[in-house]
Amino acid sequence: MNFPSEIKLFQDYIEVQLRQLAQTRYNSASPVHGACQYALDGRGKRIRPLLTLLASSGLEGKQSAALGPAMAVEMIHTYSLIHDDLPCMDDDDMRRGRPTVHKQFDEPTALLAGDALLTDAFHIALNPDIPHKFQSQIISSLADAGGGRGMVLGQDQDMFWTGKDSFTIENLNFIHSHKTGKLIACACKVGALAAEADDDTANRFYDFGLNLGIAFQVIDDLLDDTEGTGKSKGKDLAQGKLTYLALMTAADARKMAEELTQKAFVNLEPFGDRVKLIRGLGEALLNRSY
Amino acid sequence: MNFPSEIKLFQDYIEVQLRQLAQTRYNSASPVHGACQYALDGRGKRIRPLLTLLASSGLEGKQSAALGPAMAVEMIHTYSLIHDDLPCMDDDDMRRGRPTVHKQFDEPTALLAGDALLTDAFHIALNPDIPHKFQSQIISSLADAGGGRGMVLGQDQDMFWTGKDSFTIENLNFIHSHKTGKLIACACKVGALAAEADDDTANRFYDFGLNLGIAFQVIDDLLDDTEGTGKSKGKDLAQGKLTYLALMTAADARKMAEELTQKAFVNLEPFGDRVKLIRGLGEALLNRSY
Repeated sequence: MNFPSEIKLFQDYIEVQLRQLAQTRYNSASPVHGACQYALDGRGKRIRPLLTLLASSGLEGKQSAALGPAMAVEMIHTYSLIHDDLPCMDDDDMRRGRPTVHKQFDEPTALLAGDALLTDAFHIALNPDIPHKFQSQIISSLADAGGGRGMVLGQDQDMFWTGKDSFTIENLNFIHSHKTGKLIACACKVGALAAEADDDTANRFYDFGLNLGIAFQVIDDLLDDTEGTGKSKGKDLAQGKLTYLALMTAADARKMAEELTQKAFVNLEPFGDRVKLIRGLGEALLNRSY
Repeated sequence: MNFPSEIKLFQDYIEVQLRQLAQTRYNSASPVHGACQYALDGRGKRIRPLLTLLASSGLEGKQSAALGPAMAVEMIHTYSLIHDDLPCMDDDDMRRGRPTVHKQFDEPTALLAGDALLTDAFHIALNPDIPHKFQSQIISSLADAGGGRGMVLGQDQDMFWTGKDSFTIENLNFIHSHKTGKLIACACKVGALAAEADDDTANRFYDFGLNLGIAFQVIDDLLDDTEGTGKSKGKDLAQGKLTYLALMTAADARKMAEELTQKAFVNLEPFGDRVKLIRGLGEALLNRSY
């Protein structure tokens, strides 16, 4: 994906900080520490922590303060990938061109690595540069986005409806807003909270992220049909997974993604040019071709 | 286990509150919500949330403030049991006289229920009656106790050494202090923090719980040999699991548990009779016969 060069600087910063976190926090010879290091070095696009840092930066927050929440969001995302790849879930052997964690290590170690990253995220989020009141709001937002009414519920509903013919666009919207949307929304919101934003501002960043997140998922479905995702081509459809393309044409899906993205951007209007970097990231995500 | 009647009142309160939490938070028809309800209704002794409430009560903290951290600790304990019981881990079919979560539901649902309870614990811990500064300390303590340098590392080391003959008393102490001790220590500490305790007091409750927790594990090993644990008798030893009885006689193990418990109680001395309930719980745990 082609990010503007200013955004790439943030991306490089996240990569360096994640590596340092992995090497200092997971530094024992215990297998689970090796698995945590491996998983965090996952060569992802780092979209979620980028959103956190860019939200904070747009509101003139301190980068050092936003770093904790940014890494926490990436740790929660990483744990979810490890657990989703497990044999009892999606049973995936490869992720981003490398063996998945349970293939590289083993199943129990992968399970524990996911548990460790999820738990530790709540420690890492507590950056001392953030006033305590905002720390509490950040923890609350992370737990809501990830938990039994957030990402986990989306994954559960995804499993429930997979292979069933009777699912509707409402089911699919529920699944993707919970499974993908809420954590992306949270990534934006905790960036705003790290910059000590008031409730209205924090909610605007949340709504921006929620719409962007669903748009992101629609585009993921579109890209699953074509080259360059790194996933097995058309694998989702072949497995009977729920995709927007089972319910609408590719043209309609692309239109839906564009509408969601426009709806997302409306939330950022009060902040004008200050938030041009996070807006640029949103545009890059919409226009990506892989 | 025979708890004094004053402690039983706290136990009943926890049971009612956990049921209410389960029914309001996990109230959808999605399978993972059913599994969370089932797991929280697990008929456990509720030792950890009891320690939290009794620590807070001994320091004249508000019961309503300590309730959130108490339930969070029980949720983290419950998640750890669900994941430990999974086929790729201990592969247990029964727990406390009922089918384990993955037997009652299925494996993916059990995995997700554990993930949900762990994540949501960090939301539940944020009781609004607790000042924000102490909320942050509580979150930090929970994440440290549960995460990649806490309970998860203990479980990982347990798996690593299981079946190997060369493990030492140091390995075993490391495993149990991490796998069992740290969360029990945390349960006590977060109760103190909910009562707005200073650092020295919070650390005393932590050290009390850490020693008590290891003592608790030694007694668990002793009871595994005898009747009435609800576990398969001698199953741990038969599976090549690490127990203190593989390294010492039962008499020496009992002496070790008593010494740890005395070491635990020393930490509570400055608080005199105010902490008689939590001391009474500690004594009941040491003297239990099942």
